[in-house]
Amino acid sequence: MEKLPAQMTVVGISKPGGPEVLIPETRPVPKPGPGEILVKVAAAGVNRPDVAQRSGAYPPPPGASDLPGLEISGEVVALGEGATKHKLGDKVMSLVAGGGYAQYCIAQDAQAMTVPESFSMTEAGATAETLMTVWHNVFERGGLQPGETLLIHGGSSGIGTMAIQLAKALGSKVIVTVGSQDKVDACLKLGADHAINYKTEDFVERVKEITKTGVELILDMVGADYVEKNFDAAAVDGRIVQIAVLNGPKATINAAKIMVKRLHYTGSTLRPRTNADKAAMVRAIEANVLPLLKAGKVKPLMDSTFPLEKAADAHKRMETSAHIGKIVLVV
Amino acid sequence: MEKLPAQMTVVGISKPGGPEVLIPETRPVPKPGPGEILVKVAAAGVNRPDVAQRSGAYPPPPGASDLPGLEISGEVVALGEGATKHKLGDKVMSLVAGGGYAQYCIAQDAQAMTVPESFSMTEAGATAETLMTVWHNVFERGGLQPGETLLIHGGSSGIGTMAIQLAKALGSKVIVTVGSQDKVDACLKLGADHAINYKTEDFVERVKEITKTGVELILDMVGADYVEKNFDAAAVDGRIVQIAVLNGPKATINAAKIMVKRLHYTGSTLRPRTNADKAAMVRAIEANVLPLLKAGKVKPLMDSTFPLEKAADAHKRMETSAHIGKIVLVV
Repeated sequence: MEKLPAQMTVVGISKPGGPEVLIPETRPVPKPGPGEILVKVAAAGVNRPDVAQRSGAYPPPPGASDLPGLEISGEVVALGEGATKHKLGDKVMSLVAGGGYAQYCIAQDAQAMTVPESFSMTEAGATAETLMTVWHNVFERGGLQPGETLLIHGGSSGIGTMAIQLAKALGSKVIVTVGSQDKVDACLKLGADHAINYKTEDFVERVKEITKTGVELILDMVGADYVEKNFDAAAVDGRIVQIAVLNGPKATINAAKIMVKRLHYTGSTLRPRTNADKAAMVRAIEANVLPLLKAGKVKPLMDSTFPLEKAADAHKRMETSAHIGKIVLVV
Repeated sequence: MEKLPAQMTVVGISKPGGPEVLIPETRPVPKPGPGEILVKVAAAGVNRPDVAQRSGAYPPPPGASDLPGLEISGEVVALGEGATKHKLGDKVMSLVAGGGYAQYCIAQDAQAMTVPESFSMTEAGATAETLMTVWHNVFERGGLQPGETLLIHGGSSGIGTMAIQLAKALGSKVIVTVGSQDKVDACLKLGADHAINYKTEDFVERVKEITKTGVELILDMVGADYVEKNFDAAAVDGRIVQIAVLNGPKATINAAKIMVKRLHYTGSTLRPRTNADKAAMVRAIEANVLPLLKAGKVKPLMDSTFPLEKAADAHKRMETSAHIGKIVLVV
């Protein structure tokens, strides 16, 4: 194993602002603490929370790196005390508390997963945050069952494209909403049963036409007026899981619909969960989902890659919302 | 057993309107169908849905009696085909699909429960609807656990006073909101740990003072601006169960709070549930709650009784919201 350098290149947030505030810097290579591993980063996924953090709207939690980047792939190059799940040289992919936009990054040993042989390291770098978000919200929190129908808003996003594949692989029907014909085509190709262009169709009406009784589960990252529309699109006893509010958090609802349809409206954010919670999700994923990844049945849909130093261009692409699938920084 | 008369006195809704539209009439005594029993009514509880039905806002479901009245006590005087849970002469209390404001009323054999010896028949007539509503929403849907704190809005209502007793008997802490000092005193006497007069105190602030971290479960019958206030009063991972919207169904919410606090917002109405669902609730109550009733640890708090023919006066009292506990018609 090569000797670790003292310094590394990272991309930091020079000040809150637009993509242009993402600027390469030099930082000391971090040292793994108890239960941690140091990963030489191969690829780092770009996610919406990175954009929010960059613009100043989503400060990192206490103790986390101030650098953006919540998921990485790479090689284990140093082990902290008590880190026994992985060994030096292992190829891993992992959620990280921040700091993914860097040549080296600390991960929790218990949260890192072995990269499936069917995955490139670039694909592996686009997997962890998305997979954990989908697994927890669709299956653990949302309780999706085989035969049920899942409605995914933002079907062509990184999370949406992962959710389509996982839900189909585990026996559910999938309807997505997207904003263009290109995205409709991409989602249908990935396995979605129906894709609704919300710019030309009323998704509540279409969902009722397709399902007659509404959908059992909705994964929503839009918020705003979608909240009440979700109440209308859900079946009796339906569940709605809010994972982002890209169109804003304020919503007007009719609380009687919650009662009359016996809806369950919940949601979560991944980043503030405890390390123990995240490790438990990873164990569940290793038991339930990793076999599907190894078999090549599920893998992240790749939109585009950028060199680490061009992180600003990656953010620009995400903010256009033109992307279909994952945007990844290659280190 | 006395011979059944052909005709009976009931109180019907002569037309949608105020309490004065409740007028005694004569109707044929109904005959129990398969799985049904005929009960000679001793007492019939008055509930908010009766008021809504009377005013025209809550039509009875298809197939149900057009007469108001959702819970009764009385003696079994006829058995339908296959009704084997109870026998002639049994003293029972039961949820009914309607028609409780009458000398005789049909109940589902599987939904009727034996009256505990510690109960008067008047108390028994005030039990079934309230108990099933509290059991299902607080314990089955809300999942209240020993040691958790339950916040009950409308703590002095029939449902509130039953919820206070059951939650305390099963090991939880209870905070209620009410609208007068009399009601504060009554709820504390019943066992509530804290009672907040919402007219003089901000319940969100008081709940935070009392609990530091918020409450694990909220039972809400108010709706309107309470919906978002409930989001603020709930703990991380807290649950909110909506069972009525007495102040109106329209609410403005911040959907980001659902995510950040990982809340669960749900609700239900009892009347449209299937007979199978209701029978399952009754079996769970017989297993988990009836021992508490038999031991005299839980019984409905009685506000007032009225003769059946004075149902209009009973509704007037409910609409003042001056009552503390249950209002009952004695037949």
